[in-house]
Amino acid sequence: MASWFRAGRLAAKLGPSSVTPRALHSAQCLRNQAIDPRVWALGRLDHVGVAVPDVDAACLYLPVLILFGQVSEARSHPEHGIRCVFIDFGNSMLELIEPLGEASPLQGFIERNKGGGLHHICLEVNDLDAAARQLSDLKIRLVSPKPRPGAHGKNVLFLHPKDCQGVLVELQQA
Amino acid sequence: MASWFRAGRLAAKLGPSSVTPRALHSAQCLRNQAIDPRVWALGRLDHVGVAVPDVDAACLYLPVLILFGQVSEARSHPEHGIRCVFIDFGNSMLELIEPLGEASPLQGFIERNKGGGLHHICLEVNDLDAAARQLSDLKIRLVSPKPRPGAHGKNVLFLHPKDCQGVLVELQQA
Repeated sequence: MASWFRAGRLAAKLGPSSVTPRALHSAQCLRNQAIDPRVWALGRLDHVGVAVPDVDAACLYLPVLILFGQVSEARSHPEHGIRCVFIDFGNSMLELIEPLGEASPLQGFIERNKGGGLHHICLEVNDLDAAARQLSDLKIRLVSPKPRPGAHGKNVLFLHPKDCQGVLVELQQA
Repeated sequence: MASWFRAGRLAAKLGPSSVTPRALHSAQCLRNQAIDPRVWALGRLDHVGVAVPDVDAACLYLPVLILFGQVSEARSHPEHGIRCVFIDFGNSMLELIEPLGEASPLQGFIERNKGGGLHHICLEVNDLDAAARQLSDLKIRLVSPKPRPGAHGKNVLFLHPKDCQGVLVELQQA
């Protein structure tokens, strides 16, 4: 429970001026032990998502990764509006994703970041349904209300970047 | 050498229209075997850097990570213009970094991304000097010309995001 005390100390130290109401609510929930922190647990950093305009060109444009990493074949996932390859570094992976189709959820990101860029991180959890319930209670916004099958067969959900320091966080059932 | 052939096949398939001169140069170097791909090797994905305006507030704002991750104490590195904490997921880490001082290299990023965001990825390499030489030969631009001590004691160098699909890549001596 060291982390819990740390959060309490930080809240006291920072004071209300530097802490948003949303963060304060989360800290208060934790302090009041209204939420049991042991219901579910985070696991490994599964992958880092990198949005690119073109997966094939990206593979060529990153020769160093192609040469030294373990690169998967490109796969299209029309139901998710993406095409992707994975580069495996042994402990974790990069996922290069390009928009597929006009309605791709990546289209806006690529329009704002022409050459591509860091898009999301994906963390494993041991119980995604419990995580979804608890995160909602903590007022952390979910991009979709419930877990659903991701591009890789496992159930996933996304946490809103505005509640994660600007980082789009994907949680994946381990 | 499967990856090498893959790069060659891709270059042929994509044609000059979709491949930048820089990428084509890299592919040609590889095809001509002017560069030995076995001089050095990539290792693990050491960490993902997340820029935040305030490390302490970020730790409070990400209660889920604080509760379940292994969080280090915050450390200031005035010589690098950053203050950071690490969140350890066992296989890899998040590094939350805030700008320290007016001349911090993070200042511009935080001005463009008020709430913070994904900033860089850090990959280990087994021979950083060899990597620096070879990457220069491949016309991949380095942010500084030579490896130098990073915030964590080990030598590092940064690859220019424009040569890595918009991703700022830190290479760290393993």
